[in-house]
Amino acid sequence: MTSTSPTTPLRLGIAGLGTVGAGTIRLLRANADLIRARAGRPLEVVAVSARDRNRDRGVDLSGLNWHDRAEDLVNDPDVDVVVELIGGSEGTARTVVENALKAGKPVVTANKALLALHGPSLARLSAAHNAPLLFEAAVAGGIPAIKTVREGLAADRLTRVGGILNGTCNYILTVMRETGQAFASVLKDAQELGYAEADPSTDIDGLDAAHKLTILAGLAFGRPVDFSSVHVEGIRHVDAADQNFARALGYSIKLLGLARMTENGLHARVTPCLVPQQSPLAQVNGVFNAVVAEGEFVGRIMIEGRGAGAGPTASAVTADLIDIARGQTMPVWGVQADDGADTVLRAQPITSGQGAFYLRLRVEDRPGVIADITAVLRDCGVSLRSMLQHPAESETAPHVPLVLVTHQTSEAAMQDALKRIGALSAVTDTPVMIRIEAA
Amino acid sequence: MTSTSPTTPLRLGIAGLGTVGAGTIRLLRANADLIRARAGRPLEVVAVSARDRNRDRGVDLSGLNWHDRAEDLVNDPDVDVVVELIGGSEGTARTVVENALKAGKPVVTANKALLALHGPSLARLSAAHNAPLLFEAAVAGGIPAIKTVREGLAADRLTRVGGILNGTCNYILTVMRETGQAFASVLKDAQELGYAEADPSTDIDGLDAAHKLTILAGLAFGRPVDFSSVHVEGIRHVDAADQNFARALGYSIKLLGLARMTENGLHARVTPCLVPQQSPLAQVNGVFNAVVAEGEFVGRIMIEGRGAGAGPTASAVTADLIDIARGQTMPVWGVQADDGADTVLRAQPITSGQGAFYLRLRVEDRPGVIADITAVLRDCGVSLRSMLQHPAESETAPHVPLVLVTHQTSEAAMQDALKRIGALSAVTDTPVMIRIEAA
Repeated sequence: MTSTSPTTPLRLGIAGLGTVGAGTIRLLRANADLIRARAGRPLEVVAVSARDRNRDRGVDLSGLNWHDRAEDLVNDPDVDVVVELIGGSEGTARTVVENALKAGKPVVTANKALLALHGPSLARLSAAHNAPLLFEAAVAGGIPAIKTVREGLAADRLTRVGGILNGTCNYILTVMRETGQAFASVLKDAQELGYAEADPSTDIDGLDAAHKLTILAGLAFGRPVDFSSVHVEGIRHVDAADQNFARALGYSIKLLGLARMTENGLHARVTPCLVPQQSPLAQVNGVFNAVVAEGEFVGRIMIEGRGAGAGPTASAVTADLIDIARGQTMPVWGVQADDGADTVLRAQPITSGQGAFYLRLRVEDRPGVIADITAVLRDCGVSLRSMLQHPAESETAPHVPLVLVTHQTSEAAMQDALKRIGALSAVTDTPVMIRIEAA
Repeated sequence: MTSTSPTTPLRLGIAGLGTVGAGTIRLLRANADLIRARAGRPLEVVAVSARDRNRDRGVDLSGLNWHDRAEDLVNDPDVDVVVELIGGSEGTARTVVENALKAGKPVVTANKALLALHGPSLARLSAAHNAPLLFEAAVAGGIPAIKTVREGLAADRLTRVGGILNGTCNYILTVMRETGQAFASVLKDAQELGYAEADPSTDIDGLDAAHKLTILAGLAFGRPVDFSSVHVEGIRHVDAADQNFARALGYSIKLLGLARMTENGLHARVTPCLVPQQSPLAQVNGVFNAVVAEGEFVGRIMIEGRGAGAGPTASAVTADLIDIARGQTMPVWGVQADDGADTVLRAQPITSGQGAFYLRLRVEDRPGVIADITAVLRDCGVSLRSMLQHPAESETAPHVPLVLVTHQTSEAAMQDALKRIGALSAVTDTPVMIRIEAA
């Protein structure tokens, strides 16, 4: 029910013509009729900016204003809305978004790092200049995760939000589980298939998932979360053996980003987790993402879909543009600044948490070793739920794997026990510890 | 970014104080602070209407305007927004919604039957009187299915929408599968547990799911769907034996509502379906609902959660109220009337569809029977993919179950074959036919 004349197009300037930028132009053209019907007016790309004018991007760019500098696109008087698809938390992307907001122009971005690191200042700019900042594509690609959390579940007090937020890690862990291949070998294949970057560290070290979790937690709890307070672990230390032991114990290993609001404050972490094989998150495989949200009234909601790729990301970017065309936008964190949206939330240190844990040790195959390990756990107050001891891999192998699963305990006690166990002479390698989640 | 003064409350009149009505009042009070922050203004219940003034509903109703006739609540000058939670497609519920829209008052309803049967005329009233009509709670309870389809996926051309839309049926089918109990016995238990109504026919005969599918399809395809054109089957004819055979074949049986837009028009049906055990829909068990949507760009999205109950439904009702308070509402089908929202879509007859089928027959245990049956299938052009023939239940039993699974074929050919097979003298009971879905 917009009052804008249905014939006035909303004029878009797209900064960044990579896969997503080109995909967005393709989608806007392919679905122009239905987008106009839903937006109440046409959406028209009038200006673009990218480094290389001559690259073939599979879309016709003739007739568009071309800006070599993305900063100039912001100042183009023909541009009503700036679409930032350059990426990166600093440099051009940040300048473009900040300048557009300062100029009062609505911004749509897919830039998770920018929002996670500079969300508070960008939200202030957006409010001060009455310029909406939308970023549905920044979390979980085509999944309308942000709309679900910020609007769909707006009535409820959310207690937990997160999920499988990185498709590269989920792909690698899924293949490791299905084929028994080692991490490094699956990563190499994923790079060849285009599911992992040449420099994969942002994905496999958990940073990308942590960016998305920071954004989701900010929306769920109505104020920005300090990214540096989020505990982040990646999946480099997960071994094919862990997937096998997990399966034997009735679990699957997933990289989860989870934020919980408790009486003691915010807990937020990205870590590999053992989740029960029958749980909904364990069924989300390959490059798919899934976002879970739990509220006191609504219970548990899970939404899954493609977390990356030109088509899904373009769908999310364009849904934001339709909201802008309809005049349906809201403050960055879903609440006005005077309702606390200016107060940054810090996550509690990881050691203040509780949980159950999976431990994989490599130990000498001789009497007394298990007694020593279980004595340490007892002394630290960590209670064991189950133990898997495998026979030696060969008659002459001096070392055997030993897997322990604990009951709920404090993270601090577990880390203390881990340190002491690692120092035992019979424990030959650094112990591997993975958290267990009910999921 | 609403311009309304943040101190002016949005005043609500709630018609119907059953579980959902009382739950909505409870939620509005429990979460008043965060709702005010997200809505930009307080939401305040000022008037209610129900038949019995004296029933204890667990919420304090003192100080509210009480209307014995829900119609009077509409005319209460203190009421800004009418919340219709009476239910039913005719009578008071319909009058209340129509009168409120005619009076220019926004309406929030959880009434799926009303929207499915009278969506076109209500949408016209809403547009004519500039009175938003919101109904998130009408489909899949607490799951923000409507927002996901109408806004989150607004950029894409959806090709398929639907899912597990009735928690009662999903609960019954899940228990049948897990325990091997017969339909009637599980239904009786479900009634005692409050998961099924005393008169369960709206649920188990598929009508409730068909109401929700009609609404979802209208949103996905941007115009109302004629409810009477949707093919509806329930689950009364599904036997515990079918769940067992399905499992042996690698499937699970679910009641699915599915609408597809094809080159030949709309296909929309509610039927029990065999879905692959590993598919996401097969993992959605018990009273949970799940909505799937597929688009050309976004791929496949699935959202699952609690499809009924006071808490989830109150969450959806209140999310709509927050949207109204924010001024963020849109036409019923997501597009303006001049974009086709006035044209009613009719589903194609079921016989014009394609699919793969599961057939369970009861046949005489003598030579030549299978040859007769397979000859009928050949004559009708139906190609077999697999066959399960179980030994007789006892040495002396004259009849054995025979299960056939077909390749993709036309529904018309299948129905023709089914009629001819049912007429064979060796086939002793009415054949059971269940559709197979990739899900």
